[in-house]
This record gives sequence, structure tokens and C-alpha cells, in this order.
Amino acid sequence: MSARDAALVRLGEERAAALLPQPPDRPLDRASLLRVFAGLRDTGFLGSTLPPERGGMSHSAFGSLVEGVGGGLPFLSNHSVQRYLHASGSDGVCARWLPPLLAGRAIGLVAITEPHGGSQVADVRAEVRRTAEGLRLYGAKTWLVHATVAHVAVVLARGPDGAPVRVVVDLDGPGVRRAPMPTNGLRYLPFGSLEFDGCPVPDDAVLAGDGVAATKIGFAVARSLVGVQAVALAQRALTHTVYRLAGRTARGRPVTSSDVVRHRVGAMAGRVEAARLLCYEALAGVDDARPGCDALAAAAKVLGTDVARDVTTECVELCAGAGAAADSVPARCRDDAALLATADGTSLVNQTIWGGHVVRELLRERPDLRQGPEA
Amino acid sequence: MSARDAALVRLGEERAAALLPQPPDRPLDRASLLRVFAGLRDTGFLGSTLPPERGGMSHSAFGSLVEGVGGGLPFLSNHSVQRYLHASGSDGVCARWLPPLLAGRAIGLVAITEPHGGSQVADVRAEVRRTAEGLRLYGAKTWLVHATVAHVAVVLARGPDGAPVRVVVDLDGPGVRRAPMPTNGLRYLPFGSLEFDGCPVPDDAVLAGDGVAATKIGFAVARSLVGVQAVALAQRALTHTVYRLAGRTARGRPVTSSDVVRHRVGAMAGRVEAARLLCYEALAGVDDARPGCDALAAAAKVLGTDVARDVTTECVELCAGAGAAADSVPARCRDDAALLATADGTSLVNQTIWGGHVVRELLRERPDLRQGPEA
Amino acid sequence: MSARDAALVRLGEERAAALLPQPPDRPLDRASLLRVFAGLRDTGFLGSTLPPERGGMSHSAFGSLVEGVGGGLPFLSNHSVQRYLHASGSDGVCARWLPPLLAGRAIGLVAITEPHGGSQVADVRAEVRRTAEGLRLYGAKTWLVHATVAHVAVVLARGPDGAPVRVVVDLDGPGVRRAPMPTNGLRYLPFGSLEFDGCPVPDDAVLAGDGVAATKIGFAVARSLVGVQAVALAQRALTHTVYRLAGRTARGRPVTSSDVVRHRVGAMAGRVEAARLLCYEALAGVDDARPGCDALAAAAKVLGTDVARDVTTECVELCAGAGAAADSVPARCRDDAALLATADGTSLVNQTIWGGHVVRELLRERPDLRQGPEA
Amino acid sequence: MSARDAALVRLGEERAAALLPQPPDRPLDRASLLRVFAGLRDTGFLGSTLPPERGGMSHSAFGSLVEGVGGGLPFLSNHSVQRYLHASGSDGVCARWLPPLLAGRAIGLVAITEPHGGSQVADVRAEVRRTAEGLRLYGAKTWLVHATVAHVAVVLARGPDGAPVRVVVDLDGPGVRRAPMPTNGLRYLPFGSLEFDGCPVPDDAVLAGDGVAATKIGFAVARSLVGVQAVALAQRALTHTVYRLAGRTARGRPVTSSDVVRHRVGAMAGRVEAARLLCYEALAGVDDARPGCDALAAAAKVLGTDVARDVTTECVELCAGAGAAADSVPARCRDDAALLATADGTSLVNQTIWGGHVVRELLRERPDLRQGPEA
Repeated sequence: MSARDAALVRLGEERAAALLPQPPDRPLDRASLLRVFAGLRDTGFLGSTLPPERGGMSHSAFGSLVEGVGGGLPFLSNHSVQRYLHASGSDGVCARWLPPLLAGRAIGLVAITEPHGGSQVADVRAEVRRTAEGLRLYGAKTWLVHATVAHVAVVLARGPDGAPVRVVVDLDGPGVRRAPMPTNGLRYLPFGSLEFDGCPVPDDAVLAGDGVAATKIGFAVARSLVGVQAVALAQRALTHTVYRLAGRTARGRPVTSSDVVRHRVGAMAGRVEAARLLCYEALAGVDDARPGCDALAAAAKVLGTDVARDVTTECVELCAGAGAAADSVPARCRDDAALLATADGTSLVNQTIWGGHVVRELLRERPDLRQGPEA
Repeated sequence: MSARDAALVRLGEERAAALLPQPPDRPLDRASLLRVFAGLRDTGFLGSTLPPERGGMSHSAFGSLVEGVGGGLPFLSNHSVQRYLHASGSDGVCARWLPPLLAGRAIGLVAITEPHGGSQVADVRAEVRRTAEGLRLYGAKTWLVHATVAHVAVVLARGPDGAPVRVVVDLDGPGVRRAPMPTNGLRYLPFGSLEFDGCPVPDDAVLAGDGVAATKIGFAVARSLVGVQAVALAQRALTHTVYRLAGRTARGRPVTSSDVVRHRVGAMAGRVEAARLLCYEALAGVDDARPGCDALAAAAKVLGTDVARDVTTECVELCAGAGAAADSVPARCRDDAALLATADGTSLVNQTIWGGHVVRELLRERPDLRQGPEA
Repeated sequence: MSARDAALVRLGEERAAALLPQPPDRPLDRASLLRVFAGLRDTGFLGSTLPPERGGMSHSAFGSLVEGVGGGLPFLSNHSVQRYLHASGSDGVCARWLPPLLAGRAIGLVAITEPHGGSQVADVRAEVRRTAEGLRLYGAKTWLVHATVAHVAVVLARGPDGAPVRVVVDLDGPGVRRAPMPTNGLRYLPFGSLEFDGCPVPDDAVLAGDGVAATKIGFAVARSLVGVQAVALAQRALTHTVYRLAGRTARGRPVTSSDVVRHRVGAMAGRVEAARLLCYEALAGVDDARPGCDALAAAAKVLGTDVARDVTTECVELCAGAGAAADSVPARCRDDAALLATADGTSLVNQTIWGGHVVRELLRERPDLRQGPEA
Repeated sequence: MSARDAALVRLGEERAAALLPQPPDRPLDRASLLRVFAGLRDTGFLGSTLPPERGGMSHSAFGSLVEGVGGGLPFLSNHSVQRYLHASGSDGVCARWLPPLLAGRAIGLVAITEPHGGSQVADVRAEVRRTAEGLRLYGAKTWLVHATVAHVAVVLARGPDGAPVRVVVDLDGPGVRRAPMPTNGLRYLPFGSLEFDGCPVPDDAVLAGDGVAATKIGFAVARSLVGVQAVALAQRALTHTVYRLAGRTARGRPVTSSDVVRHRVGAMAGRVEAARLLCYEALAGVDDARPGCDALAAAAKVLGTDVARDVTTECVELCAGAGAAADSVPARCRDDAALLATADGTSLVNQTIWGGHVVRELLRERPDLRQGPEA
């Protein structure tokens, strides 16, 4: 990791600790979240995904910032809508939403998943209908972070002609119903679902370009960033556990000086380092537009969340009573990581995507072994 | 991985396949090994560890070359003596041994481990005594690759004053007894032990510098390289397994198109990639002399050999009957990886070294938690 | 499992579901718990540990009843004090406490663990002092289930002569301070700590016999029962997960008909069955007073809680969003199992006890290999 | 385990050690194998599967005998043909083959698996044709233990009317080609394949009954016995490893007294015990003809071979250099266990069979959740 990226990690950690040292057990309200986002503005977090000349940064650099922020405030989000608007939004939409989003005065979300299951972009049921009064959005989206407090959403839906489109929706406008969704992890975040019942969509609020393709590109970034944040949670649990054990003694010596504990700490730390490197490799692949970087991002997400699951679970155990207490830091990290694992496709789905890519790549050099389009 | 390093991997793979496409099940003799080494000369393998101006390369670059060679010819070795001689050898010793070693006309080994156990440099029992006829070496070394065929050895021993020294020994000279040591893995390599019974040591064959310190530095490189080669074995087993399964069908479809198989391939490939990145991170650390790079190298070795153990074992299973047949490639990779795991300290030892480093680093920022010199 | 034991499991399940179908997220109060215990009276739960002629049952049979109750109401406890009182209590103590305990009109607990760490009976600091007014108890105990609501406790302490004793304490009497202890798992149970500040101990409230020895015997039963209840939690999470997945489809087929899911369900179910058998083997060993049954009980506890940890964690994952929701059944089972794992010694401690036993047993037949008292 | 069964284990161990203390690295010839079988005659091994009144024993008891024999002589086989002949053979066939088989003067095998893959009884291609000279057998079978030395085989094939039949074949007769099949594990056993090119089949050599059904019943027994033998190999590797480590010291103490080693020994021994119990549970289920006992046998085989794979692999590691040496006992046990894992269906296949059974059983009580014939 370069010195610049290490500095970004540190900056993220410090800012997260300063803004919200102890995230609450219930969802933050809009005002509290806006304070957090405003406090992150000068780090580049909010404009991260814009082009460099507009204040953005590389995905690798943003990964470092998110790693730093994510140990304390995992899955904070509110950085993707900016990219979509800047890349594909009309002048009117950009003028209305980009300034407040970049200033930390508005909260945005991207709405893809629907209640009937999964994040399968191929099976979108929300739809934009053309009515006498203009475009209207109907349908439902779920598992959305910030659903109960966000100001604006980019929503994937079928357009009037049946093709997928992305539309920008004012969530404080008419026709929008919000419902909270209590979660076991990431409890400080306002998860929820949205229902659109004839919500008006101005003609210039339809983003340009192929809705599904753009959504898929976004997945590679999102998955790598989930991996980075899972790794940050694993690291946090591990650090906390070493601190905890350093204060305990067994047979008159600090527990952290025993071979058993050092062996387990070593096993966990080695896996954390390796998963972190894979996540940054995926981000570098996205930055360089390397072929297969989307599959590698799927692998990075799986490994990051797998390692986080295992490390946080083992830390709960190593902390014994303190790990099972209500204020257990490792248990909270574990719950947060379990929720991260459900984002942007389950491990089962992502591992199979990545495995399919590996199989295809290996067989590309052995056409004699391929048995048809599916192999 | 840079294009240069990728080219080095490819070069190593091609050369290994050309020189010895199917390593035999019994140790190569001296002539066969010399043919292999001579065939690697122009790749830089033999002079890799010298300074760049003498034809050497960075440890990272050498790692790539070794990764390429190591899939087919793992643990080929014969590159460390050159470094010791060049760095600490007298003119006479260098003039005698460096040219044949660099040309692939001689084979060298480094002898540290003793029969009484482990690679603990603190407990060396071999000794150099000053006699009327000059220095003489007494003692025994074991688990040495190339023991039965090498021309020259750098041997760690106690000097006449009790301090550790490294001496250069002509293994074809008097007072040397060689014994082969049949192994389960890496069967193409002539492992064995050496006994020194008054073997003469010219005064200029004592290397300069602190024997133990120099040996320890060598460990970081050696461990990283073992990790890289373990990863190469895992990759080889995985590639072989995908090829194998591509030719099988179940319920009328290629096995490689089933979700179950893709999921497992993905899980293995993700771990292989992450372990590879950790090994190169350790090598980059050695190149840049980063603090803690020796501990990271221990972690890289453990993760590399752990991943190789798990992946090769799973590949044996996935290949079913073919995995259990006498000519099973995954089983051979597994056996080779199991032997690599015993080199340069067991996983237990290396994991504990690395875990101790992690604990110390984490507690460095929390002096309030430290409870004494051992924590 | 015999038909009788299977019937006891079923009886326990039905009763638990009828008495408290959905245990709350906060500790039950005394009245609610008494309703539960009264409702279990006719199952034999409360008198389980008495001799058969007094209405007790074998440990194996009680294990089945506890397995049934424990899927829904894990670690319900309140059955050990009865055994201690009946085996070692004075007539007065038995007359006062046994009837209400056996009728479900009183709640008892056994207090061993102290705040300075672990359950190491060798290092008890609570003490019974002889004063002018009679015996008085001083000290603190922690991690006690029912601490805030129990009526009576059996407390391990140093006696006036320094030897360990067990004394029966009226927790509603003077000199007792209770403090709740919020936990992450088993949230329906009132965990807490107790402080004794000169709490009066009638002379006949000192139990007969060696305090430490009796406590150790109790551990074998307690550990086996923890294992059984951990297995019950694993089974509950697995059943819930299969029900959940049966209602989901992928590619038009029920998820439960896919090979990937069946493979994972099979892997979990096989481990659950095997762990269950080991727990009952340990209980049968206790019933028959087989040598080494205490070590086997340690193994059963570790395997039971390990399997429960792994299975519940995987079930959380398999349920995806539903597993991460606030009302996630697998997540609750996982949290409950994590707390069970801290009871009666951590996995680290118990695994080492059991491993030491295995080593000793194996070396008993090879005296030539033993190297001293410690091997 | 009852005293009788423990005695059978011990008997099997002693006899195996006496008959062939160190099985060779290459397949035994017919004479050597006959000496082994003759030496086992009085243990009941050869007639184990006959009814008790004919000298047979329960499957559970036979499991104990096989566990004992199988630590040293795993997968010795030659006990199944007897059952088939006795249950379904004509008088002539029984008179010819049973006496020598029961006396250890003949070796038999059961031939099911064919070269085109798997043990899928539904896709048998060997066939019995009716010719002018009588019935003739055509086809090929593979992965057969004793193929190069056996005297007689029960072969699954399509009958003249297309329905599966089992026929008894004299392997020393005309029309039989044998080919050896070198294996990596179980190297002392003569594995091989058979080709039948018009091999004559007397009319009374066709066994009575449904070929496929009888073959499937045999699978439950075979899988449980494979599990038992895998467990025996795991136990052997573990015992050997403890003996080995007891002779090593670290920091001046026997390695077997360190917490790290005891912890790992405990973890391995606990899994071995649990897997053993599951195998015997499956055998008891077969003895009692419990519903689902075939699925449980599949689970027992998977868990037994999984545990054996993990334990032997870890033992190789713990023995360090000795584990990687050519005469490594744990490595041989691992290779033997890997071959056992391929017998009677791979782990993938068996785990999915068992998982499907678990799903069906759980959903039987919840008809509301079932979505069709496949769930």
C-alpha cells in the first residue's frame, strides 16, 4: 500500500471516530446522518466517484478511504448516486441534486433489489409508465440503505418500451411510501424499503444509457468496496481482541504471550492481510479496466466477507464472556459483516460467478476440452 | 503483477516444462540436475540473488521466475549459496565456486538444520575446531536438498571461539559422508543428510559476518519463495483438475458447468490468488527492507502452504478415481506441498512468529495494555 | 436413541413451545420464569437429578428432555441446586428449599465463577468467615444465570479453615447485592452477578463433602448438557433454514431441490448428528461412571458448541436477507450458542483438557515413550 | 460400544498386525492374500454377512471387526460375495463357491462400476446375451479390488431382456481379461479392471431377485463399513502422531505436554469419536432396518472419510519431517483414506443423497412448504 493510500485509511479512521465514536444500536435519523456526511465532505468521500478533474479519486484510493471509514462506520454509502448523475444525468437533474449531494446536504441511494428476490437485474418488475400527466413510476424496492431518510434515489425500472432505464426520483415527493426494515447488523443505518405508487418522473430524470449495463459496471466497484469494508471489520475485531486479551493473564502470564493465542492471532491476521490485498487488486483492476475485473471483484467480496465472518466469530470466542456480553465489539463486527455479506449478491452467487470465470479462462487455452457453449 | 513479472512466470513455466516435462519418482542424479541448471542459466535463475550489476534481480522478480519454475520443478533450489559467497566470501572462495555455480556446472546447498531438531539457529552443534593441521569441521546436518549430489555447501557451525560461523565446504573432499533421505514429496530431488568428520576448512573458507544474523535474513527470502512455490503447486493442481472435470459429464452436461463445481473452483481460486498476493507483498517488503518483512514472510509461507495443502487435497477429491490413481497429478502436488511446508520452520513455528509480531505491533500503540517484556 | 428418549425430546419441545413460544429479547422476570418452571414440573425437569426413587432420571434421559426444551428455551437451568441439596444438604436446608424448587415455586443457581476470571475452582476468593454472630459470606460471583431473580444459591467459597466449602444462601436475605449483566445471546435469561457482603450463613447451610471435588463432578454433567443444548440450537437453525429455503425458488425450481443446497444441508446435518451422539455417549459415560467420562464430556461440549457455531453461522448466510434481519432465527440461535460456548470453561480450556486425556491414555500403553510426569 | 464389540475391534487389530505387520507398497499376489484370508477365518470375517445360524454376525459386530482389521489392512474386502451367493444363489453356485470363500481358499469381488463413470446402477452397460451356446457376458468393469487375483465375481449386467441381473462369473475361466490399476493409496491391494468378452455364464449362475435393488441394499452396508475403516485410519494416524511427538521436546518439555499440541490432539480425537459413533449408528440402523438407514450410511461414509482426510493431513503436518519422509505412517493413512473416499460414490454424491433425505424428512412435517415432487 502506498503512503498516500495508507494516509487515506488513517484519515478515514480518524474522521469516523471523531464524527460518531460509538454508532448507536438504532438507525440514525436524517439530521444525524447529514452531520456525518458533512463532516466527511473535505475527505473527498462524497465526490469520490467523479472524474479527477471534478474532485474525484481512483477506485483504489477511494477503497483506502472507505477502509478507514468502514471500520467504525461500515457501509455508510451515499457515494454512488453522484457517479450515476454525473455520468448520465441531464443538466437539470445534475443542477438540482449534485450540489447538495457533494456538500453533504442530501442523501442519495441506488434502488435495484426488489421484494421478489435477489439482485437479478434481468428480472426488474418496477416500471415507468407514460400517462397523460407524464411519466409515472410504479413498483417496490427493498433492502435499501438510507431508505427512510434519503432525499433522492436512482431507481432501476422497465421503461415505457420495456427496456430497463434508470430514473431519478425525489423521495420527498408524492407517490413514495417508505418503510423501515430492522436489521441485526449495521443497526445504525436506516435500512428500509420503498414503494412507488405513480410517483412522477420528469422527462429529464431518465438517465442516459443502458440501465442494466451501467448497473452491472457498478457492481464491480460495489463488491470490491464491500470486501474492503468487511476486511476493516475483521481488523477491528482482531485489534479489539488483542487489546482485550493483553489485559488478561493465565498461569501468571499475559494471555497474549501464549503460543496458543499467538498462533490463532497469526492465522487470523494472515488471512485478513491476504483478503485485503485481493480487494485492492480488484479495485486496481477496475481502475485499469482489466478484463475479468468484475469476476475478480466478486471473488474479493466473497473472500473479504468470508474472512470477516470467520475472524469476527473466532474473536467472539477468544474474548469469552466479554465476547458474549451485550456490548461485545467482536459480536457487533460479526453482525455487521453478516449483513455486508448479503449486499450485491450472496457469497453463493458471487463465488459461482467467479468460479465460472476461472473455469472459462482455464479452458480458453484448451479448446480441445471444451464441450459446448456451457463449459 | 507487472508485465515483466508475468513474463518471468511464463518463462519459468516454459523452461521447466522443456527441461523436465515429467520429473521422475526417484531422485535425479548429478548429471541430470546439472543439465537442468545449465538450461536455466540464461533465465537469471542461478545468479538471481547477486546485485543487479552482477546479473541479479530483485526478490520480487526472482519470485516470479521461481513461481514459474516451481509449478513443474518445485523447490529446485541451488540459488542461495551464490548470495552468501558473493556477500561474505573471500576472493579465493568466490573465484573457485562462483563461476561454476553461476554457469550451472556446480550445485550448492546451505546446511543449517541438525538431526537433534528444528531449524533453531540458536542451538547449533556442528563445530569448527582448530587443529594442528588447520580448521576442521565436525557434526551433522540433515533435511538438505541436493545432499547426495551437491559440490559445495555453506555450513552453519560454532567457530573455534564458540560464536556461530558459516564455512564453505567442498563436499567432494575428505571427511564428508553423504546419506540419502527418501521423501514422500518432491521425490525428484536428492534429499539427504551430511556428516562431517574432521572435514578440512581452509582459513579463507570462513564467511565474514555474524553467522546467525545472516542466516536469519536468508529465512525471510526463503520463506517467501517457499510460499510462492506452494501457490504454484496449488495452481497446477487446480488447472489440472479443471481440465480433468471438463472432460466428464453428469446428467448430460459437462461437470465444469455445474454450480457445485464452479462454487468449489471459485473458492479454491480465490484463496490461491490471495495467498499469491501475500507472498509477493512479503517479497516486496524484503526488497524495500520494510520493518517486519521477516514476520510477513513467515505469514506468507504459512498461508501459501496452507492454501496449497487445502487446494491440492480438495483437487484429489474432485478428481475422484483419477485423483487416487498412482499417476495422480493433484496427489503429487499435495505431497510436494506437504514437504515444502516442513522447510524453513513448520507452520506452527512460523504462524507463532507472525502472530507474535502482530500482537507486538498492535500493542505498540497501546502502552497502557502492555504488561511486561513478554506481551 | 431409544423410543423413550425420543419421546422425552418431543415432550420437551412441545412443552417449551407451549410455555414460551417466542422468548423475549429481554430477561424474563421472576414471575414469568416461575410460570415456565411450574409448567415443566410434571415432565420431571425440576427433579431430574434426584435418585430415581425420588423422582429423578438418568443423565441420558435428562439429556433428551433438555435437548427438547433447549431448542426453544436454551440454558433454562434451575436443575442443579436440587442435586447438591439432596446429596449433601442438611435436613433443615432440604426441608426449606427442596419442596419449592421441585414444585417450580423457587429458582436456584450454582455460583462458582468469580470476576477475576475463569471457572478455576482452585482459585476461589469468596470466603466464609466465622464471626461473633455466626458464619458470614463475603465475595463476588459473576456470569450467573437467574442472578437477578433466583431465590437460593449454592455458592463455592473458602471456609473458615481455608478449605473450599459450598454454602446455601438465601438470595432474598440481607447482605446480597444483585446486578444484571446484559448479554448478546440467551437474552431471555436474567444473567447477572452477585456480591455477598457479610451475608449470613446458618451453620446447617454448609453442604457436606469436599467442595471442589463435588463441583468437578458436576462439571461433567453440565458440559454434556451444554453440548446437547448447543446441538438442539443447531438443529433448530437448520430446520428453520430448510423451511425458509423451501419457499424460495431459483431458476424456477425450489432452492431446496438444488444440489448445492442439499450438499450444504447434508454437511450440516451430518455434523449435527455426530455431535449429538457424542454428547449422549458422554452422558452414558457419566451414568455408568466410566473412567474418563469427564474428559469425554469436555470433548462433547466443545464439539457441540463448535458444530452449533458453524451450523448457525452457515444458516445465517443461507437465509441471506432473512438471516440478517432483526428477527432472524438462525442469528438468534447463533448468539445463544455463542453464549453456551462460554459456560463451564471455554472451548480452548475444554479442548485442552480432553486432548491431555487422549495423550495420557495413548501413552499409557507405551511407557517407553513417556518422559516424565507431564507427558 | 459394548464389551463384545470392543473385543472384536481388538481381535481384528491383533490379527491384522500378526498376519501382515507392514503391508507392502505393491499389490499382494494371490497366494499372499489367501494366507491373510485363511488367517482371518476363525474371526468370522469371511462368513460375517451370512445369517447368524450359518455363522454370520450383525452388521454392527462386523463393523467392529472391520474397524480392528482396517487400521492395518484397510479395505481388505472379500466378504460381500458370500452374502449375495447365500441370499440369492442357486444350489450349484453355492456348493461350488461358498465353501472355498468361507475357508479363505478363494477370493471374490462384486463388480458394479463401469469405465464410463460412477457407480450409477441405473446406467449399466455390461450385458448378458443369450447365444446358441448359452448365456455369454460382455462388457467392462473397473475400480475393482482384487481384480487381478480374485477367483469369482458377482457382476451387475443387463440381462437378455434388458432388466438388470447379477451373474456369478469364474474369473479363471475363458473370456475374462484382467488389467492391474496402480493406485496411490491402498497400494497393498490388487486393484484392477475386468473385461468380459463372451465369458460363459451357466444358467444357474444368474442370481435370483432384482439386480439393482439388491445392489442398492448392499450400498448401505458398504458405505457404513468404509466409514468405519476411514475412522480406523484416522485413529491410527493420530496414535502414531502422539507416539512420535511424545519423543520430541521443545523448550525442554515433551511436545505432547504443550497446550498447542494437546488442543490439536483434542480437536482431532473429538471428531474421530463422533464420526465413529455415526458409523455405528448407521450400522445399527441397517441391522434394525430403520427407514432412512441408507441415507444415514451415506452420511456416515462422508463424515468418516472427511474426518480421516482432515486428521491424517494434520498428522502429516504435526510430524513435520517425519510426516514428509518416504515411510511416513500418517501419509500412508491419508493416501489410503483418499482412496476409501472414492469407493461407493464420492463425497459429493453421498453428501447430496443424505442432504436430500434430510430436506425431505424435514418438509414431510410441513406439507404447506412443499412445492412439488422435487422439493
